[in-house]
Amino acid sequence: MSLSKVVDAIRRHKRFLISAHIDPEGDAVGSQLAMASLLKRLGKKAVMIDEDPPPTSCMFLPGIRSITLYKDLKDKRAGKFDCAIIVDCPTLERIGKVKGLIGGDTPVINIDHHVSNDMFGDVNWVDRKAAATGEMIFELSKKLRLRLTRDEAETIYSAILIDTGSFRYSNTSAKTHMIAAELIGEGLDMNAIYEHLFELRSFQATYLLGLVLSGIKKSRDGKIVWVWLTKRMLKESGASFDEAENFIGMPRSVKGCKAALFFRETDKKGVYKVSFRGSKEIDVNKIASKFGGGGHARASGCTIKAANPKQAEKTVLKEVAKAV
Amino acid sequence: MSLSKVVDAIRRHKRFLISAHIDPEGDAVGSQLAMASLLKRLGKKAVMIDEDPPPTSCMFLPGIRSITLYKDLKDKRAGKFDCAIIVDCPTLERIGKVKGLIGGDTPVINIDHHVSNDMFGDVNWVDRKAAATGEMIFELSKKLRLRLTRDEAETIYSAILIDTGSFRYSNTSAKTHMIAAELIGEGLDMNAIYEHLFELRSFQATYLLGLVLSGIKKSRDGKIVWVWLTKRMLKESGASFDEAENFIGMPRSVKGCKAALFFRETDKKGVYKVSFRGSKEIDVNKIASKFGGGGHARASGCTIKAANPKQAEKTVLKEVAKAV
Repeated sequence: MSLSKVVDAIRRHKRFLISAHIDPEGDAVGSQLAMASLLKRLGKKAVMIDEDPPPTSCMFLPGIRSITLYKDLKDKRAGKFDCAIIVDCPTLERIGKVKGLIGGDTPVINIDHHVSNDMFGDVNWVDRKAAATGEMIFELSKKLRLRLTRDEAETIYSAILIDTGSFRYSNTSAKTHMIAAELIGEGLDMNAIYEHLFELRSFQATYLLGLVLSGIKKSRDGKIVWVWLTKRMLKESGASFDEAENFIGMPRSVKGCKAALFFRETDKKGVYKVSFRGSKEIDVNKIASKFGGGGHARASGCTIKAANPKQAEKTVLKEVAKAV
Repeated sequence: MSLSKVVDAIRRHKRFLISAHIDPEGDAVGSQLAMASLLKRLGKKAVMIDEDPPPTSCMFLPGIRSITLYKDLKDKRAGKFDCAIIVDCPTLERIGKVKGLIGGDTPVINIDHHVSNDMFGDVNWVDRKAAATGEMIFELSKKLRLRLTRDEAETIYSAILIDTGSFRYSNTSAKTHMIAAELIGEGLDMNAIYEHLFELRSFQATYLLGLVLSGIKKSRDGKIVWVWLTKRMLKESGASFDEAENFIGMPRSVKGCKAALFFRETDKKGVYKVSFRGSKEIDVNKIASKFGGGGHARASGCTIKAANPKQAEKTVLKEVAKAV
């Protein structure tokens, strides 16, 4: 049983690096925070280091400011930790530069729920049926016989909420609800958490949403719906890139839409990010994989290079059209 | 125990009228459908009659078309039923004209979760801690030892989803999640249910939302946020006026917003509709009243006349600024 091996490895080590994927979202960040907190309660040292900052929507999470960014580290040499725990990450490459901090003989614990996880760890606990990595951290706390603190419950609940879209996506299982039942018993302000994660937007981000949706497009049959986020829109609105994180929900909710796409210009010319959301019939993980990306069957993403936005759009839509 | 009394009353009667409140929403309709189905499985006759039609968002629910509207009844005499079950209704008056179908000596069973329920029934089962009346119908099914069918599970799940805002409002309890865990075990398409109840918009309406949000404005301190829906936007998007119904939620969710306003041009020149949403601190009912409108403290509306949109905006904002 992989969970037991994780517990063994935790008990045997003292100084932990905890990291998650680049561009972390709620599940990555929430799982990381809960993991660090549990380790500290076991008397361990635990340092959270990520390449990218947490999304703005997660800044309310208790402990979030103790996540260190790789670029802010003074000492970037490897080997300061005697164990690395990587959460919510399908491959070790996905932690980005943080990989450089892991010494050659430092054991790596891989805790993840991605279908595409490549079992990169020395200890691998990959539960592809878990709705969120947060669910797995909950299970780990049980195995460690630690009753969750309110803060830990909040971070795990948030992780689950993000990855299940508030218990609506098909990854939500009976177990997810049983875990939620226990978590909310700790007295969480569910509505406040929901608003932070999904709803409250800055004025600038709301304006940006308007600009993005004003350019919404669809295929002739209406099955493919997509939007663009351009640098011009960012400038005009004054919003930041990561405030647009959840915008893909809007094309996704268009009646008749089977595949939703969210194109974004990046700082690098000719480099575009694409997020995909699909309905049951479509495996968007496969589509993203064709461009070197990945994720889940219903939600995935990739980065592509193209001469210009039009070209990027054309290339990606061609693949999507094949699948729809 | 009131639940036992409900079960006794059900066992003793044969021909049931099932009704819910006027302007029924998801909990009323879902509870009614599940109740009727359970009764039929017990070999009873059960007729659902409401004064108002179910909301469009609920038209996907199995069995919804078997709800009869009062106005469509040929025979409006009282006494055709030997028992009436009223669900999700705080007072008997709230079922509207359907009340006239209940004979003077027909026993009334009151199943509800409203704090304000006035115990109007001959048998009253009022659980003010239940997140939804649907939760209570779930419990009733247990007591009747009927395992829910997939259709019943779907109607009860929908009832709960609506009243908890997908498990986010503070009425959501550990029990709510435990019930959800059991319901989704029947193989529900949670995402489809969520989309029907909360989210799906037409392509045109999503485009319209973009146009509306592109014109979002705020007061200097950010406490008042407003948007306009113009006839030009309607024309450009091809969406209909009532598809914009929920748009006010967007300015309302802007961080720091205390009062949100939604201005709309009407077919009459110089006549504008205004919707208001306020935070706890502000009584928007008072503001709307100044212009001859009304509503609740947190949600209200009014119609105003002005020479042009600018003038309408100025007049209303002046009153709002006083209150904020």
